[in-house]
Parts: sequence; C-alpha cells; structure tokens
Amino acid sequence: MGKARVTLINNLQFVGTADSGHAVVMDAPGSVGGTNAASTPMELVLMAFGGCSGMDVVSILKKKKQDVRNLEINLDGKKADNHPHMFTEMHIEYVLTGKDLSEEAVKRSIQLSLEKYCSVGATLSKAAKITHSYRIVKQD
Amino acid sequence: MGKARVTLINNLQFVGTADSGHAVVMDAPGSVGGTNAASTPMELVLMAFGGCSGMDVVSILKKKKQDVRNLEINLDGKKADNHPHMFTEMHIEYVLTGKDLSEEAVKRSIQLSLEKYCSVGATLSKAAKITHSYRIVKQD
Repeated sequence: MGKARVTLINNLQFVGTADSGHAVVMDAPGSVGGTNAASTPMELVLMAFGGCSGMDVVSILKKKKQDVRNLEINLDGKKADNHPHMFTEMHIEYVLTGKDLSEEAVKRSIQLSLEKYCSVGATLSKAAKITHSYRIVKQD
Repeated sequence: MGKARVTLINNLQFVGTADSGHAVVMDAPGSVGGTNAASTPMELVLMAFGGCSGMDVVSILKKKKQDVRNLEINLDGKKADNHPHMFTEMHIEYVLTGKDLSEEAVKRSIQLSLEKYCSVGATLSKAAKITHSYRIVKQD
C-alpha cells in the first residue's frame, strides 16, 4: 500500500505528503483560476515517470559497472483534446553521458526499466502508448 | 502536449521541471539505494491524483457558491506484489469542511471530477480500480 494526504492551502493550491514524509506543492495555471506557484498534477505525473525510470536505469547500469556521469530524461506527453485530457501517448528520451558506456548495457537497462521495473511507467502504459529513444554522449 | 525534463543530481536523486518551470526533487528510499531526501515517483503519482481531483472539486463547488473552508484528501494506493508493483487499486477520500455545504453539491462535484474532468484520475483509472468516499465536516 501507499498512502498520501493532500490538503488545500489556498485558492487551487494543495500540499501533499506521502509515506516518506516529504511535502510537495501543486497548483493550477492562471488560465483555470490557479496562481501557477507550483507544478501541476499532470506535470508531476510526467516527471514521476522520468524519475522512476531514471532511478532504474542508473541502478542497473551501476550494477553493470558502467560509469554514468549524467542522465537527462526528456518527456513528451500527448493529451487527449477532450476532457479529461488524459495522457494518450508519451515519449521518453534518455540522454546518458559517461565514459566508455556500453550501448548494449544502456539499451538493456532501459528495456528492463520499461518492461519490468518501473512502477509509474507500467501504470501509465495502461492508458498511454509509450515510446522511447536514447542518446549516448561520450565523455573522457 | 506536455513536456518535462528530469536530470540526475546525485545517486538516485533527480530534479524535474516541466512546462510551468517549477522544480520537483525525487528520491528513492534507502532500501533500494536512495537517500530518502524527497518524495518517490510513485508518491508523486498518488499526490498528483489528489491534487488534480481536489482542484476540480474546489473549482466546481466555488461555481456552485459553496463555502468550502478546507479540503483534505486521503489516498490509499494498492500496488501489485510483483514487479513492476503498479497501482492496481486506489481509494480517494474527500474530507470537506465548510458552512452549510450542500451534500448534493459535494457529491456532484466529486462525480464530475472523477468521471469527466480529472486528467490524472482518468489516466490512472486505466490501470487501477478507483473507489471514493467523502465526509462533510460542518463549520459555523
């Protein structure tokens, strides 16, 4: 189980906490009456997917003794035109920087994350078609 | 479209930003090698659902001239035992505090959020069975 509590602070601003105890603020853009003081809930979902898969990829590559110096993940989420504007497609791009990174290890770590380990990705994949790509930036 | 970028900071810690420009830090618990310095990605998803639906409920009740003084949302997410431990069930409880709140208006606002407006809920409902409940706390 995972538990969370979200409390109204002001206007459309909410603060959430969950099992780990860390607080996160959420807000809505001005166009729908919010004050744009924090990430929107849909942004959190997109970022959570990147963080979740990024943690997998880093962990797996560490086990494979790969020297990952940086990992940047770019996400594009396509939403349906009509309410409730849910995610219908997502693309996740992994940009890995490191010394002598094995492309095979990188490919495999991404595959393991997306097909086996990433909880957020697995949850989202029931709603959205997920595609991915990667780039390796060499660093000496 | 929604865009986000997530960058490795250190160990399993990532910082994400999306279209609104606000940054969110994510981390993993110590049990999987993280440092528990921030919310986990799965926590963000659960909180995002609460924030998303909470914003709907507050907006709708405001339009209905209801005097909502506080809204607390409690979320329970059940995860699958096996990898990737995705959400399979979620319960969302709305605790509304206000003066002369109409139960009919409260019920209707929750229904509209869950069935029509909440993007995060709609996305998650493809993976998890979502149930809900509410409590109204009277305040003079």
